[in-house]
Amino acid sequence: MAPECTFCQIVSGELPAEYVFEDDRTVAFMDINPATDGHMLVVPRAHAVDVLSVDEHDWTAVALTARRMARWVTGALGAGGVDLVQANSDGTVGAQTVFHLHVHVLPRYRGDRLGPWWTQQTADPHGITRAAERLIEYGRRDLAADRAQLSLSERPT
Amino acid sequence: MAPECTFCQIVSGELPAEYVFEDDRTVAFMDINPATDGHMLVVPRAHAVDVLSVDEHDWTAVALTARRMARWVTGALGAGGVDLVQANSDGTVGAQTVFHLHVHVLPRYRGDRLGPWWTQQTADPHGITRAAERLIEYGRRDLAADRAQLSLSERPT
Repeated sequence: MAPECTFCQIVSGELPAEYVFEDDRTVAFMDINPATDGHMLVVPRAHAVDVLSVDEHDWTAVALTARRMARWVTGALGAGGVDLVQANSDGTVGAQTVFHLHVHVLPRYRGDRLGPWWTQQTADPHGITRAAERLIEYGRRDLAADRAQLSLSERPT
Repeated sequence: MAPECTFCQIVSGELPAEYVFEDDRTVAFMDINPATDGHMLVVPRAHAVDVLSVDEHDWTAVALTARRMARWVTGALGAGGVDLVQANSDGTVGAQTVFHLHVHVLPRYRGDRLGPWWTQQTADPHGITRAAERLIEYGRRDLAADRAQLSLSERPT
């Protein structure tokens, strides 16, 4: 737990919230500034700043709770769609404002005020191949590092 | 595989794409209409319409590949933030347009053209408690059904 973290305080019950679901690794509660009816947040119990740093098992647990909540808003509130949004930011760009990983569960309804998420093709389309090449080059090193770590962990101790 | 599905055809290689990563259960490739530089999609190999119906293991695999791609766009492209967006729709509302589950990996940069995802507090804030109550009531039945199924599966065969 991070002492100054609002979501850690909600997880621990130190701050109040409208809780909807919890399990060993995750808690789901209502967003206090709902964009649409039934807007929820799913967080891991264990403090993690963002998706880059979250523990693997906490992240898959968050994904499964988000899936469950998507079903519940469909079943309970009659949402015709559900958007799941996770925003990560280094603090200078992007949409993250609370630095405890959270996934927004946003029920969608006919006539709701959420527009299309983005205008298509705002980036340079000719840059796609260049971006892919840089990602693949970086990814080769990342995967090689993963395999090196795996082979270390497989050594007899 | 669903024969008419664009993303199934990309997974199988029948349609071309700029592939970035693949593993047993998932494929990541560049979005052809990038909202920002490095915009990717992560899909399960096995056809699933959306997050409501996707197999549990395919969904956690998609979540892990999306986490990996979030790291790659940060490391390879210098993104200062990464948004992960999954949109589900019954076809009448919401933002899903291709009906094979996909998670958008959206790198964020200073001055990019993605605005805030929504205007805070567009829903009725007094409805929060009512929505929570309906979700919990629905959820009780869902969890009871889960437990009933679990207890069936635990019966000696």
